[in-house]
Order: sequence, then structure tokens, then C-alpha cells
Amino acid sequence: MMFMKNIKLIVEYEGTNYSGWQRQNNSTTIQERLEKAASEALGEKISVIGASRTDAGVHAKKYVCNFFTQSIIPTEKLCIVINQKLPEDIVILASVEVAKEFHSRFSSKGKRYSYTILNRLHPCAIGKNYVYHYKRKLNVESMKKAAPYFLGKHDFSAFKSTGSEVKDNVRTITELKIVKEGDYIRFYVSGDGFLYNMVRIIVGTLLDVGEGKIEPQEMKLVIESKDRKKSGMVVPASGLCLEEIFY
Amino acid sequence: MMFMKNIKLIVEYEGTNYSGWQRQNNSTTIQERLEKAASEALGEKISVIGASRTDAGVHAKKYVCNFFTQSIIPTEKLCIVINQKLPEDIVILASVEVAKEFHSRFSSKGKRYSYTILNRLHPCAIGKNYVYHYKRKLNVESMKKAAPYFLGKHDFSAFKSTGSEVKDNVRTITELKIVKEGDYIRFYVSGDGFLYNMVRIIVGTLLDVGEGKIEPQEMKLVIESKDRKKSGMVVPASGLCLEEIFY
Repeated sequence: MMFMKNIKLIVEYEGTNYSGWQRQNNSTTIQERLEKAASEALGEKISVIGASRTDAGVHAKKYVCNFFTQSIIPTEKLCIVINQKLPEDIVILASVEVAKEFHSRFSSKGKRYSYTILNRLHPCAIGKNYVYHYKRKLNVESMKKAAPYFLGKHDFSAFKSTGSEVKDNVRTITELKIVKEGDYIRFYVSGDGFLYNMVRIIVGTLLDVGEGKIEPQEMKLVIESKDRKKSGMVVPASGLCLEEIFY
Repeated sequence: MMFMKNIKLIVEYEGTNYSGWQRQNNSTTIQERLEKAASEALGEKISVIGASRTDAGVHAKKYVCNFFTQSIIPTEKLCIVINQKLPEDIVILASVEVAKEFHSRFSSKGKRYSYTILNRLHPCAIGKNYVYHYKRKLNVESMKKAAPYFLGKHDFSAFKSTGSEVKDNVRTITELKIVKEGDYIRFYVSGDGFLYNMVRIIVGTLLDVGEGKIEPQEMKLVIESKDRKKSGMVVPASGLCLEEIFY
């Protein structure tokens, strides 16, 4: 039987210049760049399995993916040799050998995202690729009151963009924290899984609460409605960052 | 007598693409871009007085500068009309009228800087323009023990790059805080004034402490030596940010 190792990578990337994670024709993606770099570095054709399809412009601090290789390069050196073939905005932080059964997506138990808003009149001069600049005044206390309604197990159909083939829209949210630091408002959302654009629609709906368009206690009804027309906009990708994937 | 208002601006900028604050021939600077934008927006020749010469690549969150104008545009609108003429990486956050005697530099009582290090083996994929990537392992506790020696009034000749014409090297440091957040180490330094490259040499010297090349308690001797050869390197500009100027 052929010698094959299953290698898990932890990857940090800035999504600004990519059309998301997933390989596709005629556009540059994280998966494609990783597969190209790994194939070049290891001298064999490498297919990388990702934990999640992040959208164009979304960032990740500890993305997880895995691939099988026959390489005899010591496992802990793999990140170094592949990093040498990667562009500056994709960096592998660690490479570890995992059981043959490990699958980045199917083995994952949940994820944690952050979303950052710069809430002031004037635009962002420092780090604009990492925030969503929102001009109108937001009542953070109202948003904090609305947040707990998302916690727990719910049908999140109201928070899913069309274009997804997923049938079961029930997910469990375990964290929805809102932190204000100066003009920055950061949202932290953890859960066992997320529907298409779910985090960005949750944040968009909380902005409606922050502006007083929706009362905090109405959030229960918005969730129960399962109606995408009752929730808020899909906020831009730049503010979103996949912080961590749980196993 | 001609009608003249003294306008104070609060400015955020990313220094990456500029040769620092101060106007100079054959290179793009923050001062030059601000003067050009203000002159265009107000239709008169504007000279801007800055609080501090920041070096090439250094960022600022609340830089202060002032200028005199005959413009009848309402003061609070000035930031908006000038912002329209500025590049994306320079943003005026506020414009307020101040007394004729106000001078951004001479009226200032002190400044607060931050310096950010990413301390891990692998380089930075997200926000590399805002950090100094330092590979070697650092003992943060040792650096924290060395920090208090800088506090108070000292002759900081050991922490000054050549090329400065300043004669009096006595300055008072009121804060030197070191905060570790994951792989990031942030230094916050406040004082009544800073010699040329002083913050960057203080951080460079603390890195020597973090690596065990200098014992924390030796910092007293390094300061007292007034000898530039006893202190550490000038760390790169990218990690430095002028946080605030005190009046």
C-alpha cells in the first residue's frame, strides 16, 4: 500500500484580492493558490480540502484545510516549504499530521467569526480592507439587547441568502458578543454551522436594531418568521473574518 | 484687518506610501498632500503646521495640525470638503476653530505612541503594513520588568539616532505599557516629547531584553550610559503609530 500522510494546515489569509476560498474558473482563489504552491513545493499533484467556503473578500485567521501527500519532508517543515511558494497574503501557520479519517469540513464541529464595523462619519484611513465603514449612528446598547435572541437552536431561514442548496436551516448559535472599542464595533459569532451569508445578515439585521428600525425584542419575531424579507442587508465581506474552526 | 481663522485638524493616516509628515522635494509626504488638498478645496494657498515629524512608513490615528484660512465655509464642514480632495489613506476626522495662538507643535504637551510586533515564526498575512514581524522568541515578562526603568525624567541620549540637531536630550516618559494578545505584542509609550527615533530604539532595546541579551535591571545602566552603542536597534517604521497628541 502506498505511503500517504494526511496533513492538516492552519492558514491565515487576507481575502481582499481573492474570489473566496473555493477553486473556480477564471478567478484567483485561496484554494487554487494553496494547491498550486503545495504541488510546486512537494513535486506532486495536491488537492486541498477546505473547512469552509469563505466568500470573496472575507479574511481568515486560523482557516483549516487538509491534503494527502507522499512527501517525505518532515511534517512540521511542510508549512515552511509551501509558504515559500505562496503570495504574501496567504501564510500557513502550522502543518500537522492527522488521522486518515480527518476531513477539514466533515470533522468540524463549529466556527467562530468576527465582524468589524467602523462607525463614524469619516472613512477609514488605516486598515480599510478589514472593516465595514458605517456612517449612521448606532445604539450599541440596543444591539446588545437584541443579541441573546440569536443564541440557541433555531431555524435561521430568515438569515440565508438565496443561491444555497442547503435544505436544513436549523443551526445552533453559541456566542453573539458585541464589543465597542472607540469608533469600532466588533461582533463575535460562534455556532455549529452557518447558512449562506448568515453571519453577514445577522450583523445587517443588528444594524437595523442599532438604528432603531427594529426593536431589540422584535428579533424573536424576525427569527421565527423564517422570512428573508424581515431581516437586514448582507453587510460587505471586508468586515468579516473567520477566526477559528472547532473540532 | 483681514479675517483669518486658525483651524485645528485631527487626521488619521496610513504612512506606508509616504515619506513621512514633512514636506520635501521629490517625494510624497502627508503635509504636502494635506496642503494641496486644502488649497484646492478652499481656493487659497494653505500652509499646514504639524505637531510632529513622523518618519516614512509611520502611521497616525489622531495627528494634529493647524492652518490659517480666510474661508467662510463653516468650520465643521472644512474636514468634509478637504477629505474630498485627499487620497484614501489620509482622512481628516475633525476640524475645529482654535485661538490664534494655538500652534500644533509648540502648544503640544506630549504624545502617545503604540508599537506592534507580530512575534511568531511565520510572516503576517493580514495587516502586514501595521506590524513588525519578529521571528525570535521573546520573554514578555522580562520586557515588562525592564519597562519601569524608562519612566520619569531622564537624559535619553542613548535612545537617539544621529542626524538630529536637538541639544537637550532630557525627556519625561509617563507610560510604558506592554500588552500581549496572542502572537501580538503591543507597546504603548507616552511622554512629554521624544528624541529622533526614540520610541523605535526603546522598543529595539526591549527586544534585546526579551531575547535575554540584556537583563531587565541592566536597563538603568543603559539609560545612564547616555551611549547609543549600549541600546538596541531602531525597529522598522511599520509597527509605529502616533496614537494621540496631548494639549
